[in-house]
Amino acid sequence: MNTEKLEQFREKIRAELDRVVDFWLKHSHDNQYGGFFTCIGKDGTVYDDLKYVWLQGRQVWMYCHLYRTVKRFHRKEILDAAISGGKFLRQFAWVPSAGSSGKCAFCLSRDGKAVKVQRTIFSECFYIMAMDELARVTGDQEMQAEAERVMDLLVHWVRVDPSGLGRLQLPGDTPVNNMAVPMMLLCLVQQLTEGRAELAGKYRELGQWCVQQVLQHVQRDGTAILENVSKEGKELPGCQGRLQNPGHALEAGWFLFQYAVRVGDQELQRTAMDKFMEVPFHKGWDQQHGGLFYFLDVDGHCPTQLEWSMKLWWPHCEALIAFLMAYRHTREPRLLERFTQVYDYTFSHFPDADHGEWFGYLTQQGSVALDFKGGPFKGFFHVPRCLYMCERLLDSLLGDSCDS
Amino acid sequence: MNTEKLEQFREKIRAELDRVVDFWLKHSHDNQYGGFFTCIGKDGTVYDDLKYVWLQGRQVWMYCHLYRTVKRFHRKEILDAAISGGKFLRQFAWVPSAGSSGKCAFCLSRDGKAVKVQRTIFSECFYIMAMDELARVTGDQEMQAEAERVMDLLVHWVRVDPSGLGRLQLPGDTPVNNMAVPMMLLCLVQQLTEGRAELAGKYRELGQWCVQQVLQHVQRDGTAILENVSKEGKELPGCQGRLQNPGHALEAGWFLFQYAVRVGDQELQRTAMDKFMEVPFHKGWDQQHGGLFYFLDVDGHCPTQLEWSMKLWWPHCEALIAFLMAYRHTREPRLLERFTQVYDYTFSHFPDADHGEWFGYLTQQGSVALDFKGGPFKGFFHVPRCLYMCERLLDSLLGDSCDS
Repeated sequence: MNTEKLEQFREKIRAELDRVVDFWLKHSHDNQYGGFFTCIGKDGTVYDDLKYVWLQGRQVWMYCHLYRTVKRFHRKEILDAAISGGKFLRQFAWVPSAGSSGKCAFCLSRDGKAVKVQRTIFSECFYIMAMDELARVTGDQEMQAEAERVMDLLVHWVRVDPSGLGRLQLPGDTPVNNMAVPMMLLCLVQQLTEGRAELAGKYRELGQWCVQQVLQHVQRDGTAILENVSKEGKELPGCQGRLQNPGHALEAGWFLFQYAVRVGDQELQRTAMDKFMEVPFHKGWDQQHGGLFYFLDVDGHCPTQLEWSMKLWWPHCEALIAFLMAYRHTREPRLLERFTQVYDYTFSHFPDADHGEWFGYLTQQGSVALDFKGGPFKGFFHVPRCLYMCERLLDSLLGDSCDS
Repeated sequence: MNTEKLEQFREKIRAELDRVVDFWLKHSHDNQYGGFFTCIGKDGTVYDDLKYVWLQGRQVWMYCHLYRTVKRFHRKEILDAAISGGKFLRQFAWVPSAGSSGKCAFCLSRDGKAVKVQRTIFSECFYIMAMDELARVTGDQEMQAEAERVMDLLVHWVRVDPSGLGRLQLPGDTPVNNMAVPMMLLCLVQQLTEGRAELAGKYRELGQWCVQQVLQHVQRDGTAILENVSKEGKELPGCQGRLQNPGHALEAGWFLFQYAVRVGDQELQRTAMDKFMEVPFHKGWDQQHGGLFYFLDVDGHCPTQLEWSMKLWWPHCEALIAFLMAYRHTREPRLLERFTQVYDYTFSHFPDADHGEWFGYLTQQGSVALDFKGGPFKGFFHVPRCLYMCERLLDSLLGDSCDS
């Protein structure tokens, strides 16, 4: 019976992944200027031609990863689109005048002019992921070198001197350990070192540091994951210090779990499951309407983010990966129950039966609040990564080929 | 019967203003460091001690304005609080290292350390309002000079050279006429020139320029007010160009109307009513659930702002002022009907019967989504300004003293 259930999950997830890939292949390619449209309406209409760099990088990465690891996606149109996106990024994303040593833009015009630069590291992170994964499928050494160049700059900003980000140093702006930063770096370490012994050596200590930095977010005797802590790992005052983002904690959970499996650290696997999966799931699940809240205050104050109670697609994607990955390794029935609970909510609320792809933003009650398929922060990434990873995990659980 | 209705409005509004003033007098004063707490929960609890400069400046202005113009608020505790807030601002808000010639902080720590600086003009705007109004009640010439100094800097940034704001010049970041900018400057011109013939002369041309810049936002043959247009007054592509903010247009409406009354421009009064009140009211009112939408796309695409369909307190405040002011001057019954419609929605949804003050953020359906009374963008400003102005307008309509 368990096998039957897993088979059903896999069948649905596999079909959904095909549908999602088709949606983006059909609607998002800019055949004139290269790169991808990312502001795409319910029915596939492009409603804005701005090109958000996070989403360009993520789409290149995702296309390459599907092309490289899944037989049915090893198709020329997917590789060509990834190469076009990578070329667009390589040509236009880097803004030499930003920060003290250049930075990636956050947003470009359709023809590649920089519109906005953020003073954070995230555009660079997705640029690195794109360059590295593209180098893996094309064998382009220069792209891999570019990925490493930006990675080393980024590590310098995070660990040595943040002044290159271009932020004004202000006396009240005390340095914070924001969980997104070590999480992203850990993800990049895994990206860059996969199958490369030399780089694994180079980035080993960085990986350990990232894990330690992520673990600092376990607070209040292990009963909460807080998004922002001090550089010393202590709780911070105010809204910033009390902020919880359950979906983000769950994403950190599977990043840590995956790392722990690779290095063979049983204790870290346990911590990932108990602290970064169970805790945010219990805190973050809306008992009344179902689904995961976006933000919560650990002391029960109302968060100041207007969208705090909305149900977003990506926390649910991360929860699905986390619980299925943990179940795949431990076979603890409780974890499959959690996966099933999130799966039932997700598949009954987010996918659009009419036009394909998923809605991204629901009200607390679960109705569609914003009906576009792509926007400034939603592109070809969380949905296909989730479906891809869940399909692979189910393949593994069912003992089938991972390369169908 | 009309008089009876107006009397009822006035009674309710007057009582509500007293209640709102009491709430902030009781909960927002920082007697240790000076200035005001602005993150205040449903029951008055301070949930964060950060001090947002917009809200510090607005509270100083509002206290002074009530003290100066309303007999029952001509109280020492109100003046003392305004002076304390002004002193805090004067001492801590200015960050000499920001931009190319100094800037106001956006946010300060409780003890006045700069936490964040924005690369826009708005912190400076509310700083000027505070300094000028405080100078009017205290007679402090140095404060008035400070208001003028920052005003002239701000006009330079807007009309001559924006580089002092500290923004990176990017090739894709084409200059935009964002309606907030000429609106705020028009508001400041009215603030600085009231009763001062010499300054009225100095800023006359600026006032005319602001009006012309605001009027550029009337687009699509007069059927829409768009938040962002090109510097030449043309519609811009993409989401930015299609954005409508009905509450903001209504606020611009009463700014223009007030200006038009002062300069005796009948045609501008008509434009303010027909284009900046009727148009956004018709476009912005939610026919299904009542209340004004926060953002809309003029072509009916889904806005990318997650809060687009929420009902916020301040657009309703601005609508009440706009329609009552226009009714006061024209006595057109239609305008009183509009006022009544907004009034009914507002008073049945926003005020908190238990603890006083208003909730700020409702779902599209009208239930409370965020229950705090003060937050990073909600302080002692829109609610009391609306109640104060409506009380005065009703006094005038009812032929009573304006100074009770």
